[in-house]
Amino acid sequence: MDYHLSHFGTQMSQLTGVRAIMKDIIETLRQAGEREFINLSAGNPVIIPEVEQLWRDCTAELMASSEYGEVVCRYGSSQGYEPFIEAIVNDFNHRYGLNLTDRNILITPGSQALYFYAANAFGGYTADGNLKEIVLPLSPEYTGYGGVSLFKEALVAYQPTLDIDEDPHRFKYRPDFNQLAINEQTGCVILSRPCNPTGNVISEEELNKISELAAPYNVPVILDAAYAPPYPALNFTEMTPQFGGNLLHCLSLSKAGLPGERIGVAIGDPELIQVLESFQTNLCIHSPRYGQAIAARAIASGQLGHIAENVIRPYYQQKFTVLEETLDANMPQEIPWFLHRGEGAIFSWLWLKDLPISDWDLYQELKKEDVIVVPGSSFFPGLRQEWQHKQQCIRISLTATNEEIATAMRRLASVVEKVYQGSAVGVG
Amino acid sequence: MDYHLSHFGTQMSQLTGVRAIMKDIIETLRQAGEREFINLSAGNPVIIPEVEQLWRDCTAELMASSEYGEVVCRYGSSQGYEPFIEAIVNDFNHRYGLNLTDRNILITPGSQALYFYAANAFGGYTADGNLKEIVLPLSPEYTGYGGVSLFKEALVAYQPTLDIDEDPHRFKYRPDFNQLAINEQTGCVILSRPCNPTGNVISEEELNKISELAAPYNVPVILDAAYAPPYPALNFTEMTPQFGGNLLHCLSLSKAGLPGERIGVAIGDPELIQVLESFQTNLCIHSPRYGQAIAARAIASGQLGHIAENVIRPYYQQKFTVLEETLDANMPQEIPWFLHRGEGAIFSWLWLKDLPISDWDLYQELKKEDVIVVPGSSFFPGLRQEWQHKQQCIRISLTATNEEIATAMRRLASVVEKVYQGSAVGVG
Repeated sequence: MDYHLSHFGTQMSQLTGVRAIMKDIIETLRQAGEREFINLSAGNPVIIPEVEQLWRDCTAELMASSEYGEVVCRYGSSQGYEPFIEAIVNDFNHRYGLNLTDRNILITPGSQALYFYAANAFGGYTADGNLKEIVLPLSPEYTGYGGVSLFKEALVAYQPTLDIDEDPHRFKYRPDFNQLAINEQTGCVILSRPCNPTGNVISEEELNKISELAAPYNVPVILDAAYAPPYPALNFTEMTPQFGGNLLHCLSLSKAGLPGERIGVAIGDPELIQVLESFQTNLCIHSPRYGQAIAARAIASGQLGHIAENVIRPYYQQKFTVLEETLDANMPQEIPWFLHRGEGAIFSWLWLKDLPISDWDLYQELKKEDVIVVPGSSFFPGLRQEWQHKQQCIRISLTATNEEIATAMRRLASVVEKVYQGSAVGVG
Repeated sequence: MDYHLSHFGTQMSQLTGVRAIMKDIIETLRQAGEREFINLSAGNPVIIPEVEQLWRDCTAELMASSEYGEVVCRYGSSQGYEPFIEAIVNDFNHRYGLNLTDRNILITPGSQALYFYAANAFGGYTADGNLKEIVLPLSPEYTGYGGVSLFKEALVAYQPTLDIDEDPHRFKYRPDFNQLAINEQTGCVILSRPCNPTGNVISEEELNKISELAAPYNVPVILDAAYAPPYPALNFTEMTPQFGGNLLHCLSLSKAGLPGERIGVAIGDPELIQVLESFQTNLCIHSPRYGQAIAARAIASGQLGHIAENVIRPYYQQKFTVLEETLDANMPQEIPWFLHRGEGAIFSWLWLKDLPISDWDLYQELKKEDVIVVPGSSFFPGLRQEWQHKQQCIRISLTATNEEIATAMRRLASVVEKVYQGSAVGVG
C-alpha cells in the first residue's frame, strides 16, 4: 500500500549518516561466505566480563529484594526511578562538589531520545515562524545528531580549525571562534565531549567560551557526555565534567555496559529538566526501570565508577595504543596522514590529507582487503559547505581484538600507500 | 533562566488531559495527613503475585543463560530483539492463523512512543503544507492521544452515538458513521479496543467499516490493543483481534505486568513498519532489551497467554462486577445514571445525564468523601464541539480492592443523590 507521509514522516523515515552506510556493511558481512572480515565499523561496545558480572550481581540483588515487583510491574514517574535519581544526585554531588537535588535530573530511554527532545523543544520553528538553529560548534560530530531534528534546515555545524603536528602525524580539531555564531537565532548548542567519532576532548576553556557565548541568549548547551567521566570514563586525557548555568550535562550508560537497556541521564537547570520531562511524558511516559534499578545499585556502591576507571578505560585506551603504534610503524612517512589525538571514546579518526580518492572509495578498497571501517563523510551532519577534508577521513572502531586492530592497520597502511602511489603515477 | 521554546517545545511541554489532573490528585494525596483516600484514579496496574512470579522466573532463566550479556551489554537492532520478534510471530501465527514474518513486527519503548511516531509520520503537515488529520473515530478516547501530535490542530475526534438501556442504567458508545469523515485529508486513524477510559469494545463490523473507509485513501488504522487478547486479554466480551491491510495492530505489555519495562509491539504491513522503524532509529535507536528477553520466554512457553486469560482477566472482571453490583444496589433508581457496558480494560465509565454540576465539581465533592476518581472531560482529546455529555462523566479505576471499590461506590451513590437533590431544590 502506498502510504502518504507527512513532512516529518518523510524526514524521519530517512536514515542519516553512518546508518545509511551500515546497510552496506551488513550486506557485505552477510555475503562474506568464507572471507573473514575485520570489522572496525562497530559502535557496539565489547562485552567486558567484569562489566557483565557487575550487572549480573546487581540483578541478583534486585531479584532477592521485594523491590523487583515495583520496578517492572508498575508504571513510574516520568522523571525517572527515584532510587536511581538519588544515586546520581549523591554521586555527582560527592564527586564534583555540586548541590544537585532530584529536580536537576531527568532519566530518558537512552541519551539519543534526550537529544531529540532538546533539538525539537529548543530548535526548529517558533510559533511565529522563526527558525531556531541547532548549533554543532565543532564538526565532525556524532552522526546521530543528523537525525534528531524534525527540521533538517535547523541543524548548523561549523568547520573547525586544525592543530597539525606534522612530524608525529597527529592532529586535533578546535572550535573556530572566528566563525562560530551563537545568537538570537540559536535554539540550542549540542556537542559531544569526548567526541564520537574523533576522540577529541575540547578544552575546558573552549567549552566555557561556548557556554558564555550562549548564555546571554538563554541558549542551553547540551553536553553529550556519553564517553565522559565518571562513567564510562572513556577519557584518555584529563577532563573535568562541567555543570551549571545553561549547561545540560547528558550522560549515557551505553558505554558503561548497558546499551541494551537504554539509559540516558540529563543533569541541569530544573527549568530545562521540566521542559524535557513533559516532552517525554507526552512521547513515551517514562524510561524503562530495570536498568535504572540495577544502575542505582552499581552507582551507590561505587562499583560502576571503579570499573569504569580501572577496567573500561584501560581496555579501550590500550587498543588505541595498539592502533597508533601500528600506524606509526607501518604508515609511509612521506604521506600526509594524520591521526586525531586519542583523547577518549571508542574510536580513532584518521585524516588522509590530499587523499587521491574519496573516503567512500577508500572504504571500498579496504573492504577488498577484508577490513571494514566507516567513511568519514558521514560524520559532518549540518556542515553544508564544500570542504575536501570531509572526504579525506575514516573512523576506525576500537572494538576489535588487539591482533585484529594491528593486522587491519598494517593492511590499511599498504592500501593507503598504493592509493597515493597510484595517484602519483597517474598525475606524474 | 528564561529559555525560549520552539513551537513544539511549547506544545510538548504542556501536559494534556488526565496528566494535568494527576497533579491535583498527587497534591491531594500528599496533603492527606490522617485521611485515608480511596484512590480510583490510578491507571497503574496492580502487582498480581502470579504475574510478578512469571517475570521473576523468566529473569532467573535469562540470568542462568549466556544470553544475558548479549541482551543488556550490547546495542541491538532498531526493529527489536530477534527472539522476542520470533516469539510474537510464532504465537500470533498460531493463534490467529496469520502468515506474519519478522518484517511485520516493530518493537517500541512502550506503545505510546508508537502512537507518537505514527501520529507524526502520517498526521501533521505534508511537505506542501496540507494538514493531515489524526482521526479518533470514537470519543471519549485515551487521553494520551492528546499529547502525541506535534500539531494540536491535527487531532480530530468524533462524537459518538449512544446506545442507552434505560432500565438497567447501562449504555454504550458507538461510532457515528453519519459524521465520521475519513478522506484525503486524513493522515491516520487511531482507536483503542478495548477502550481506555470507557471499557468499550467496538464491534468487528464497526472496525471493518472504519478500515474500509480508510483503505481507499491508503490511510493506516492504528489499533491500540493495550487491553486486547491474547495478552493482557482484558476483554470481558468476546473479541477477535483484527489484522492485515491498513490495520496496524499495536500491543503493549504494560497491562500484562510489564509497565516498568516499556514494551510496545506493532504488527502490520512491512511498509508501515519500516517507516516507524526509521523514525525510531532516529529518535532513540532501539527499545530496551531486558523486558523483550523475558517476554520472549513468557510468550514462547505459552505462560503469558495462560496467565492473562486465567489470572489477569478474571482479576479485573471481578472488580467490575463488584462495582456494577454496588452501583445497582445503591444508586437512586430515579436518577439518569448510566454505566458504560464493561467490555474490557481496567476502568469503568459512569455517565450522569443532566448532572447539575460539572464533572470537575463532582470530582471535588467525591474528594470530600475521601474518594478520588478522574473527571471525564479529560478523555475527549480532539473533540472540539460543545457537548454537555463531556462534563457529565467520570472514570473509575478498577485497581483498588473489592472492599474499597464497594465502599467508594456507596459513597458515590450518596454524593450523586445529594447533588441531584440539591439541584431539584434549587430549581424547584
